[in-house]
Amino acid sequence: MKQIYLDNQSNTRLDKRVFDVMKPFFLEYYGNPQSIYSLGCASKDALEIARKQVADYIHADAGEIIFTSCGTESNNLAVKGICEALKSKGNHIVVSDIEHFSVLNAVKKLQKDGFEVTYISVDEKGNVSEAELLKALLKNTVLVSIQHSNTEVGTIQDIKKLVSAVKNSKVNDFVVFHTDAVSSGGMIPIDVKDLGVDSLTLSSSVMYGPKGAAALYLKKGIRIVPQMDGGVQEYSKRTGTENIPAIAGFGKACEIAKEETAANNRKIKELRDKLIEELPKRIEYIYLNGALENRLVGNVNFSIEFVEGEALFLLLDAKGIMSASGSACANKNLKMSHVLDAMKVDVAVGQGSILFTLSKYNTEEEINYVLEEFPKIVKRLREMSPLYSYFIQTGKRKPAGPGTDFDDHNHCHCDIE
Amino acid sequence: MKQIYLDNQSNTRLDKRVFDVMKPFFLEYYGNPQSIYSLGCASKDALEIARKQVADYIHADAGEIIFTSCGTESNNLAVKGICEALKSKGNHIVVSDIEHFSVLNAVKKLQKDGFEVTYISVDEKGNVSEAELLKALLKNTVLVSIQHSNTEVGTIQDIKKLVSAVKNSKVNDFVVFHTDAVSSGGMIPIDVKDLGVDSLTLSSSVMYGPKGAAALYLKKGIRIVPQMDGGVQEYSKRTGTENIPAIAGFGKACEIAKEETAANNRKIKELRDKLIEELPKRIEYIYLNGALENRLVGNVNFSIEFVEGEALFLLLDAKGIMSASGSACANKNLKMSHVLDAMKVDVAVGQGSILFTLSKYNTEEEINYVLEEFPKIVKRLREMSPLYSYFIQTGKRKPAGPGTDFDDHNHCHCDIE
Repeated sequence: MKQIYLDNQSNTRLDKRVFDVMKPFFLEYYGNPQSIYSLGCASKDALEIARKQVADYIHADAGEIIFTSCGTESNNLAVKGICEALKSKGNHIVVSDIEHFSVLNAVKKLQKDGFEVTYISVDEKGNVSEAELLKALLKNTVLVSIQHSNTEVGTIQDIKKLVSAVKNSKVNDFVVFHTDAVSSGGMIPIDVKDLGVDSLTLSSSVMYGPKGAAALYLKKGIRIVPQMDGGVQEYSKRTGTENIPAIAGFGKACEIAKEETAANNRKIKELRDKLIEELPKRIEYIYLNGALENRLVGNVNFSIEFVEGEALFLLLDAKGIMSASGSACANKNLKMSHVLDAMKVDVAVGQGSILFTLSKYNTEEEINYVLEEFPKIVKRLREMSPLYSYFIQTGKRKPAGPGTDFDDHNHCHCDIE
Repeated sequence: MKQIYLDNQSNTRLDKRVFDVMKPFFLEYYGNPQSIYSLGCASKDALEIARKQVADYIHADAGEIIFTSCGTESNNLAVKGICEALKSKGNHIVVSDIEHFSVLNAVKKLQKDGFEVTYISVDEKGNVSEAELLKALLKNTVLVSIQHSNTEVGTIQDIKKLVSAVKNSKVNDFVVFHTDAVSSGGMIPIDVKDLGVDSLTLSSSVMYGPKGAAALYLKKGIRIVPQMDGGVQEYSKRTGTENIPAIAGFGKACEIAKEETAANNRKIKELRDKLIEELPKRIEYIYLNGALENRLVGNVNFSIEFVEGEALFLLLDAKGIMSASGSACANKNLKMSHVLDAMKVDVAVGQGSILFTLSKYNTEEEINYVLEEFPKIVKRLREMSPLYSYFIQTGKRKPAGPGTDFDDHNHCHCDIE
């Protein structure tokens, strides 16, 4: 059977060249980089080469890169570590409604410890408003955390403008701006100097690098309280045995990203645009989530009325097409994604959302196969749907009421009746 | 040049069979285990097979295994997570003086948050006393953390006896017993049911498994507060993208350890005993740190008078012999190891400590080479040593006094004059 992998927001296929860089650090150069004998030095060299490669990719200095085990760990370290370091100055945090759970839940943990949080809403396309951000800032705000781009709907924030607004607001002289750039890594250029951010998360496993490595960029001078205690690794900011093969691979993935992203993106965007243009021609009552502009090149997120996302997902899988419905991390949670919810996507429609995320490995043939099979799947599901049948018979959507899940249905922002 | 790796406490060489298990999860089965399409299921299966393999190795149930990124993370999660979960019941912790820094520094962090800590001293061989442990227990003790064996001097604690003493003390009904078994993994059998511990740390990278994976065994019913917040991975006790290749490798390493440790140990013990018996015949004023009984089979730790450990380490490295002097994690810290200090090893003598840790890959030829080269290195260093020259001329050790580092010299417990 065909295997068409369109869940690259969750995890990308490892680049073979990355694996080739990793291999010797498994069987040959297994020494601890903290030791100075020959085998240790080989590991130490690999660590520092990777640090430089990651730093170069985002225009940082090598000394500003802390390696961690995953994007979740980097976000936790940033959010909690920065707030703890500044707790004598203030206890207020600002985050957007559509952050990844590793930011949202880290912030919730801090709330239990006495921090106060202001959540910034987003518009229908997933954009954070500069005005609302400025309104949220307080004298005691220690951290603003706004993601670089959104995994689910692909919305790219204007982080440069938001950072500049925060810094120019002169609300205080210590507020730190963190951005979670996991979804942007390997997809769009990232320049920490140009953005002006103080802290940024990058993860290897969604940029054709291995699992087990991620980075936190921390601008020189920004203080942080480590979240793990132990030895002296990573400038004492992240202790624990360094995962050298994964880190070496992550470095190579960044080097490749720096050189090849622009060319890859031209191809990926063509394929994505074909899906975005062609699917609505073949499927009625289908609505793109997020904007066409400032959208991650690989992201296709549609809400499809009168069907359930889970069912779409399963029938696509039966045809060898791997997708997602809602955030990968929340996949066991059958509630509508918090991102679509924040964008005020109607619950009834949002329950039929499906997410395709493309990579450099996808081909036109694969996209043509999706264009052929997906409408058939939707047709089959609608034939089974009492809601669709009611709509076809009456021309009306089933009204909200007790016993249905669709209480908000009348507020559907994308109602095209 | 020869490469003789005798720093296996810091990191072991990966078993080729482990690497073979890992390989397909890099390039072929790269799906996210949280998703239920075919590629995700392959990852999920690998995760659960590994969980079972790790559980089987320590006689636990699969549901009691939480995967983390390294031993340091497991110890941090256990120490902080258990104390946080029980903070309404008490705020007192008991640890031994010779714990790994990931336990000692996690505890220090908790002290800043209001916890009180009693440190249990050890005897000259590194053994924790049951009587002292019992004396330390308080009505509000929430956690006892005593390591299973010591990385540096190889002392194996009688954890079963200590757990039983704590549980029988009936000091309260909530105290949790955690043991850091990183140094024991792959070296001695571990049976959590027989030991009676509530929580145990195991790390892949010192048992011929890959870096990037470790486990926390947490007995069913023991509560823990996660230290990273985000998604629902690892029963919501450790969120973040699972490092599937490393976890699969860790599982295989546990399976191999279960089957082969006994046979490996017979060979390793022979080689170790040869070093322990032969080196004192070839080098004067050399003292074994730790006991001969209840010692990790691969551990050889000698203090060598009138020389510096750093110099020994460097000249050994020049001959291709990779060793350690003090804890690997503290290698950048030139102070005498906290373990030797706790065992009241004389500072002057302890500064000349060298640690060889053997693995299943070491050969008799390698050990013979060490026996041949090491005494020459000691001789060469002593020829350069004014302290040794003074001793040879006067028959006396240089007295302690201002300007020397050897104020405690007269208390040398292993003085054989």
